Amino acid sequence: MSHSDVPRIDGRTPDQLRPVTLERGWSKHAEGSVLVSFGDTKVFCTASVTEGVPRWRKGSGQGWVTAEYSMLPRSTNTRGDREAVRGRIGGRTHEISRLIGRALRAVVDFKALGENTVVLDCDVLQADGGTRTAAITGAYAALADAVAWAQEKKLVKAKAQPLTGAVSAVSVGIVDGVPLLDLCYEEDVRAETDMNVVCTDDGRFVEVQGTAEGAPFSRDELNVLLDLAVKGCAQLDGAQRQALGGE
Amino acid sequence: MSHSDVPRIDGRTPDQLRPVTLERGWSKHAEGSVLVSFGDTKVFCTASVTEGVPRWRKGSGQGWVTAEYSMLPRSTNTRGDREAVRGRIGGRTHEISRLIGRALRAVVDFKALGENTVVLDCDVLQADGGTRTAAITGAYAALADAVAWAQEKKLVKAKAQPLTGAVSAVSVGIVDGVPLLDLCYEEDVRAETDMNVVCTDDGRFVEVQGTAEGAPFSRDELNVLLDLAVKGCAQLDGAQRQALGGE
Amino acid sequence: MSHSDVPRIDGRTPDQLRPVTLERGWSKHAEGSVLVSFGDTKVFCTASVTEGVPRWRKGSGQGWVTAEYSMLPRSTNTRGDREAVRGRIGGRTHEISRLIGRALRAVVDFKALGENTVVLDCDVLQADGGTRTAAITGAYAALADAVAWAQEKKLVKAKAQPLTGAVSAVSVGIVDGVPLLDLCYEEDVRAETDMNVVCTDDGRFVEVQGTAEGAPFSRDELNVLLDLAVKGCAQLDGAQRQALGGE
Amino acid sequence: MSHSDVPRIDGRTPDQLRPVTLERGWSKHAEGSVLVSFGDTKVFCTASVTEGVPRWRKGSGQGWVTAEYSMLPRSTNTRGDREAVRGRIGGRTHEISRLIGRALRAVVDFKALGENTVVLDCDVLQADGGTRTAAITGAYAALADAVAWAQEKKLVKAKAQPLTGAVSAVSVGIVDGVPLLDLCYEEDVRAETDMNVVCTDDGRFVEVQGTAEGAPFSRDELNVLLDLAVKGCAQLDGAQRQALGGE
Amino acid sequence: MSHSDVPRIDGRTPDQLRPVTLERGWSKHAEGSVLVSFGDTKVFCTASVTEGVPRWRKGSGQGWVTAEYSMLPRSTNTRGDREAVRGRIGGRTHEISRLIGRALRAVVDFKALGENTVVLDCDVLQADGGTRTAAITGAYAALADAVAWAQEKKLVKAKAQPLTGAVSAVSVGIVDGVPLLDLCYEEDVRAETDMNVVCTDDGRFVEVQGTAEGAPFSRDELNVLLDLAVKGCAQLDGAQRQALGGE
Amino acid sequence: MSHSDVPRIDGRTPDQLRPVTLERGWSKHAEGSVLVSFGDTKVFCTASVTEGVPRWRKGSGQGWVTAEYSMLPRSTNTRGDREAVRGRIGGRTHEISRLIGRALRAVVDFKALGENTVVLDCDVLQADGGTRTAAITGAYAALADAVAWAQEKKLVKAKAQPLTGAVSAVSVGIVDGVPLLDLCYEEDVRAETDMNVVCTDDGRFVEVQGTAEGAPFSRDELNVLLDLAVKGCAQLDGAQRQALGGE
Repeated sequence: MSHSDVPRIDGRTPDQLRPVTLERGWSKHAEGSVLVSFGDTKVFCTASVTEGVPRWRKGSGQGWVTAEYSMLPRSTNTRGDREAVRGRIGGRTHEISRLIGRALRAVVDFKALGENTVVLDCDVLQADGGTRTAAITGAYAALADAVAWAQEKKLVKAKAQPLTGAVSAVSVGIVDGVPLLDLCYEEDVRAETDMNVVCTDDGRFVEVQGTAEGAPFSRDELNVLLDLAVKGCAQLDGAQRQALGGE
Repeated sequence: MSHSDVPRIDGRTPDQLRPVTLERGWSKHAEGSVLVSFGDTKVFCTASVTEGVPRWRKGSGQGWVTAEYSMLPRSTNTRGDREAVRGRIGGRTHEISRLIGRALRAVVDFKALGENTVVLDCDVLQADGGTRTAAITGAYAALADAVAWAQEKKLVKAKAQPLTGAVSAVSVGIVDGVPLLDLCYEEDVRAETDMNVVCTDDGRFVEVQGTAEGAPFSRDELNVLLDLAVKGCAQLDGAQRQALGGE
Repeated sequence: MSHSDVPRIDGRTPDQLRPVTLERGWSKHAEGSVLVSFGDTKVFCTASVTEGVPRWRKGSGQGWVTAEYSMLPRSTNTRGDREAVRGRIGGRTHEISRLIGRALRAVVDFKALGENTVVLDCDVLQADGGTRTAAITGAYAALADAVAWAQEKKLVKAKAQPLTGAVSAVSVGIVDGVPLLDLCYEEDVRAETDMNVVCTDDGRFVEVQGTAEGAPFSRDELNVLLDLAVKGCAQLDGAQRQALGGE
Repeated sequence: MSHSDVPRIDGRTPDQLRPVTLERGWSKHAEGSVLVSFGDTKVFCTASVTEGVPRWRKGSGQGWVTAEYSMLPRSTNTRGDREAVRGRIGGRTHEISRLIGRALRAVVDFKALGENTVVLDCDVLQADGGTRTAAITGAYAALADAVAWAQEKKLVKAKAQPLTGAVSAVSVGIVDGVPLLDLCYEEDVRAETDMNVVCTDDGRFVEVQGTAEGAPFSRDELNVLLDLAVKGCAQLDGAQRQALGGE
Repeated sequence: MSHSDVPRIDGRTPDQLRPVTLERGWSKHAEGSVLVSFGDTKVFCTASVTEGVPRWRKGSGQGWVTAEYSMLPRSTNTRGDREAVRGRIGGRTHEISRLIGRALRAVVDFKALGENTVVLDCDVLQADGGTRTAAITGAYAALADAVAWAQEKKLVKAKAQPLTGAVSAVSVGIVDGVPLLDLCYEEDVRAETDMNVVCTDDGRFVEVQGTAEGAPFSRDELNVLLDLAVKGCAQLDGAQRQALGGE
Repeated sequence: MSHSDVPRIDGRTPDQLRPVTLERGWSKHAEGSVLVSFGDTKVFCTASVTEGVPRWRKGSGQGWVTAEYSMLPRSTNTRGDREAVRGRIGGRTHEISRLIGRALRAVVDFKALGENTVVLDCDVLQADGGTRTAAITGAYAALADAVAWAQEKKLVKAKAQPLTGAVSAVSVGIVDGVPLLDLCYEEDVRAETDMNVVCTDDGRFVEVQGTAEGAPFSRDELNVLLDLAVKGCAQLDGAQRQALGGE
């Protein structure tokens, strides 16, 4: 990959994340809350704990975790209509909400959680590419705080460990033939291939979603992108640990 | 009003505002943006400018200003359903969006604005009473920035003054018989009478909305509440000036 | 107010109501029903009593009163779309429905009502300004009949007095600088300031909603408008008494 | 039919209509308006004329006539939810709106009407069976007035005759084995067979809708019902003529 | 009817049905399923049995049968929007779903069915006129299979006979003055009068819906059409018997 | 993979597809139509060509291809509600519709297509796992027929080649530790990892969507699954060629 010495729009190297911050305790009401930023992408993640589970899960002894993603109308360069005003959730919103939920459920032991529900709300305050990966990364930290709260409040049994691991996510893509980590918006719109990867803290995959935006991609390209993503997620895992360990 | 020596929940005197902050430039995309806080109430206000006006106003030579208000699901103590998920805007949301729009239009000279539209989005990140009055107060500052941007971009004619004044808003109410300024949530739920007042910077009224939550209120009570509100708005006007002058 | 000798569109003096009629028993099905007219504004108000209360109020021993307002599509000069066809309740409809509900609840003793619900439907058959104030004034009379029905049917305890007073409403506004009582449509569209005032029969306020349509209004103007409104409500209270006493 | 000497609930003979009234000019805004009553069934019909036609008919030189039917929530014995609140038009409402539109279009010469649209709104104020047939009968009279208005306003060419005939409708049914004309609600719910028939003033059929509510019906029963319906429509035609001729 | 020697578009005689097929067992999941074709009109009918009934019928000891009709977007010559995408069921769809439900309920003994529900889904795969009549005819066969399944599974009591007869439906109409049986699409759009008739296997009527598309129709025309329809339904009844007896 | 000698539910080997059929010309109306089956999964795919493109693409000289996926209510073992009746498209439906559209667009040269739009409707008649991959595979064949039709009708320029390749899709997953190709429903619900892979006919990837349903999956597992998927798509490509070449 000889192109890799071409500097990126924001001066990063191809395998470099944008600055990542995870500010906890951003809401006085929510059981867990994090303002996560991947560069100029800022997502406000809250975790709301309620006793009980949806009807279809009652009596199972198991909890539930779900997520809702949304963009504020002017989180983007051009104002978008509110989905509440249109009266419908768009396909992209649905898709991302479902992705976030699946990603977090991958590290939850529902028996240990008991019949409690955690809803993760991920509201994009400012978008600059990678909002879904920032949301997953931030929501995990909010979830960790919410689970700790539930343990303290004895909603969860004393020695139960509802979280089986950590989860983070990052985007990768091929732009002008160069594989790049953590695309910003300008890179994202120019990418020939775009992939979102969700990893656990042991480097395994929870979700791999690669899409050819232009030409189809080869097995070799896929492999290079996966390498980059695994590396990026390891760094995000470190950022989560640092943020959560700061208590 | 002998009760006035009873300290309020948060230690304020009856005629004291909560700490007010107006942080400008909170969005890299919006033409104007302000994070306003009235104590623990935090509202993110963005002003989006677009050339052109709604169909019914085309060719009039006049601009338009409108607003949309929304609460994030966990901005409150208990998580609320998203209106986008329910597929409907609730009555309260509609009512407040309309109020904010009317309040701001009261200080706009639409001829001077020309055929441009400004949409104010007021998203409540955290609620602790007075979200609509904080929204109006913050949205005015975001609007002022957006108008300045439009002037710089020559969307508005050189010497045009699209803003004819400033506007701010505050809540007042009677709690346990004591008239109070700028109610926090706990005071709001206990108020017998609740009033939202929108003033211009010359102390006149744009909107007066008083509601008896318990017993009807007398003309005297109304007068005391209006006095408090006018005083509060004057202070908010000062906070706006300071924030906007800080450039 | 030297302008007051300028005759109004329909020949009234500034402080004169339009002819008011309250025809009871306009529906054979409803527990209370009134066709109210304020001049050419005609609103059909029905009160429907059902045993039981909404879920959130069950077991409280208290009743509930709510209202729904709607305009027939051709109640106005130009036909409007049906909200049922559009699939959404508009903001104005929501706002007025909520106002009517609050106004009536202000004179209800919910303990005395017991766990019964009264729904007031206010359907505008013909509009000529002041539809919401006519609706409140007529709905009160329908409510009074419905409560009497409930007492007769023993749904309400023998000596319970679910109504703590009467309530009526009127609009006031400043047109060409002259404060006017009970605006008709043509006056309403030209008003600089428009206010709707809801009073109890002892002259206190349940709701005061003043809006500057053009220039902001001063404290003095507010006071003159309130004087007019209180006077108008007193007359409406008389009309209600006469209609209800006619049994 | 030996049962025919058994008196009906309201004392009518089997082949007797309820008292029919058609009050014209019930709205000051609409181009045509009629309050029609078939006994206790009362439907408010307005005809709204607008220049122009729906997009799919533009440039055809032909007009259009359509109808919307709705029941006020407390027009029935038990209050029904508003369709606007539910956010959907129910199947029954759709079906009846379409029936009314088809019935009226059967007597319209769209070339003669020119590119004008007439919308018939039929709002049921009080229901006691036969609301759709009363609506058609009343809407025809409102349409006749609207067409006359359009002729006077020169929207329709001088010698054009947009109406090719008159149309009216009535229900018939078999109750306890007896064929009855113009069923009231109590008869309607007990009917084994229920039929709505729309006739032109020359006694031909525009619409015949017969439904077996209980057992299927025979050809003979169908014939008896059609005889009754034709007779009833002839009387309704007379009532329309009288109402329209009274100008 | 001297026109009857004019051959139809597809060479049929005026009183001839299109080729009818009823293929059972078209779904491996549904309790009853039939692919019915009337010429090029193809409707996929499934019958789904569930224990229990809607809330309003609980405890009655009686079952329920309902139907939903829908057209695939490209079942017609020009692609139509999906109703799910528009977010609303159209009036025509509502009307036909209700018709199918009523037609089938006419031959169900709900006591014998017990508290079970059968939902008939009729999805039009290809449309060429007569989709509603094909749907009724096919849905009856699917219902018969579903009832047999329920009897085998002991959901229905041993000797209960939930079906009191068979039901089928056909369209008839007058095209260029000639009464025709079972109209294809091209005939349907040219028909002056269009009628859908639902008969039981003993030749009585469940539903008769005749509509004048052009000029009103006379009693004589109605009679000729009914004769044709009765004859057509008798043949459809034969086709159902043959299909159901083939087990 | 020592488990690979354990026979699958339906007797297949781990790397064996279910029987695949592609029946073309299943609709007389659509420009392209295919009934595709992967074992018991049956999807009816139609391609509808219209001249012109959506507004945002007008004047670009480029065409557009989009897709809509839906399941008939009883395509599954238990009847599901219709999305049209619920008034909303569910998240899963949205997600799959978007996936199909992206997959097909990957092999379209929009310049060569010219300003024409092709809509692919994929309606699941019977579901047994892999509905989205069957839909993509069948929709490609329908698209190929539709493009040929457009060429014949001269909607597309004489020598233009709107299709740059073929596309097919298959699911793979790990069940009880064994990587399997083309999961049926029973395998799908038990899969620890589930992946949908869309390939072009040259073996490159258009879309890779892998999801850990249970434990996260390793890089090695991912590689084995990709090997299986590539092999499966190559066979599906053969089936498409055979079906399309059969003309």
